[in-house]
Amino acid sequence: MRALVFRNNELMLEKNYPLPDLRSGEALIRVVMAGICNTDLEITRGYLTFEGVLGHEFVGLVEAVHEGPGASPSTYLIGKRVVGDINAACRRSDCAYCRQNMFTHCPDRTTLGIVNRDGAFADYLILPVSNLHVVPDNVSDEEAVFVEPLAANFEMLEQVHIKPTERVVVLGDGKMGQLAVQVLALSGCQVTMVGKHEEKLALASQRGIQTRLLEKVEGAQFNTPGSRVDLVVECTGSAQGLELAMRMVRPRGIVLLKSTVADKSTLNLAPIVIDEIRIQGSRCGPFSPALRALSQRMVDVRLLISARYNLDEGLAAFEYAAQKEVLKVLVKI
Amino acid sequence: MRALVFRNNELMLEKNYPLPDLRSGEALIRVVMAGICNTDLEITRGYLTFEGVLGHEFVGLVEAVHEGPGASPSTYLIGKRVVGDINAACRRSDCAYCRQNMFTHCPDRTTLGIVNRDGAFADYLILPVSNLHVVPDNVSDEEAVFVEPLAANFEMLEQVHIKPTERVVVLGDGKMGQLAVQVLALSGCQVTMVGKHEEKLALASQRGIQTRLLEKVEGAQFNTPGSRVDLVVECTGSAQGLELAMRMVRPRGIVLLKSTVADKSTLNLAPIVIDEIRIQGSRCGPFSPALRALSQRMVDVRLLISARYNLDEGLAAFEYAAQKEVLKVLVKI
Repeated sequence: MRALVFRNNELMLEKNYPLPDLRSGEALIRVVMAGICNTDLEITRGYLTFEGVLGHEFVGLVEAVHEGPGASPSTYLIGKRVVGDINAACRRSDCAYCRQNMFTHCPDRTTLGIVNRDGAFADYLILPVSNLHVVPDNVSDEEAVFVEPLAANFEMLEQVHIKPTERVVVLGDGKMGQLAVQVLALSGCQVTMVGKHEEKLALASQRGIQTRLLEKVEGAQFNTPGSRVDLVVECTGSAQGLELAMRMVRPRGIVLLKSTVADKSTLNLAPIVIDEIRIQGSRCGPFSPALRALSQRMVDVRLLISARYNLDEGLAAFEYAAQKEVLKVLVKI
Repeated sequence: MRALVFRNNELMLEKNYPLPDLRSGEALIRVVMAGICNTDLEITRGYLTFEGVLGHEFVGLVEAVHEGPGASPSTYLIGKRVVGDINAACRRSDCAYCRQNMFTHCPDRTTLGIVNRDGAFADYLILPVSNLHVVPDNVSDEEAVFVEPLAANFEMLEQVHIKPTERVVVLGDGKMGQLAVQVLALSGCQVTMVGKHEEKLALASQRGIQTRLLEKVEGAQFNTPGSRVDLVVECTGSAQGLELAMRMVRPRGIVLLKSTVADKSTLNLAPIVIDEIRIQGSRCGPFSPALRALSQRMVDVRLLISARYNLDEGLAAFEYAAQKEVLKVLVKI
């Protein structure tokens, strides 16, 4: 099959990559469309140690299932259009995390296109049947590709009770920030997106979200005792983002840390204690609320699409996606 | 009056320091006993900008009150033995924090012996009447001096629900760590103190608390997926403490940050996101639970007392308190 493979620090389009073996309890999925995420770009820059087929945001059609012994019947999935949770947990009864349904934190998990499991930029992928979610008919393929990053934003609402009367700032106007403001706004709170790029801020403005240019905010707005906000979501992908977030959040407020910074950061920790701030890390999230939000038209992810490519143009797609002004790049398989 | 004063980078015992002016809504308190805290030591090392009378852990007798216009009657306090909340908030109706009873976070607060308010190593101090708590008769002066740091440990239970079935590690065997293990144990959880000093760990062991030498823990215990704990309390006062805490806490667990580190720290933030850890800063806390815990003999603070001095020997008391093996030094006024 065709596959976009990262190996020996190089991204290559292979034409004869071996078809994945279907294992017990897993499904073979023909990929229809996949999206390029910042994590994919980071892997190609050598920030992670993964080698194999890239990609973890996808929609596809189930072609076959391998019902394991004692597994619940899953042949009904064949032919269904699905998206899939990217963390494949061990689900053993002696795993401290799987026992508590913390599958995204299973220490023995593989992760689609990120850790020990080939990903979605290929004709086929495999995932455990229990990871799959059928996509409602009124959600398009292009929208369905956003379920995974959208779910990661619903994770914030799983972790923190955001009250309708609270004031929230999202730092960063990239892909993550754009989804974050839409998901946070569902709580009824007053969200402001703070970013560096007027054209990206304009996308959020279109949805009625309040926006501010970073250069106009620093040192002024959100820094007086009365103007500091209840929650700041850090989506800048830079180490300085957290320090700015700590200045903008009120005492006893919450900073949600969404972006992973690979390098070590130099940070003054004292304000965390003095202001009794909660720094809350946040990663993968629940797929069902994300699918409901798309199906019920509570969010609009289409405005994030910057370009569409075919898998055969995969290398060009990655090159384009790496440019600063670009948001989501979709790859038709 | 006599007062231990820090000024021009020097700690001095003054014999004729002016008596404090009694202001509206405040009480004049004759100090009976005060304790030396790490914050006092940090001030004498120049880490904070405070100049004036040091000290914020005290017990004293109310000699006079100045009832402000419209204030509730407070003359009943005269002659009473009291401890006092160290943060004197503005309590104005237009203060975003005082309006929400977040007095310890009032941006215009003064803090006894720390920010813009003379402290407790003196014959007299003043504090707002609303900051005072009468000490039950069965709590001794020596115990009452611990109410302030004990309250700061009860703050953890205000912020976080610690379940009786959870596993907790306290990093640090100093004054803060010793109080932390006792307060945390009240929740019924399994607490382990991890520290560097056998003789300090022995104090916790005496109370039936499990202890471990740091050198035996690093790289071994609490680092496997199944052994990482639900909550780690960072009381080491060092920047490396937080990184160790992040390795010991389980995914979705909590690190309570108690110690303020003055310098910038270099830190890898990615594990916070990947493991979805909550880093929770924690500072001053509620006095009433601390007084109840002492009165009801739920904690024993006396084993922390390393030495007793008189105010006239104040400089020697500070010198002794600065030594590594020393825990609490009390000063009789």
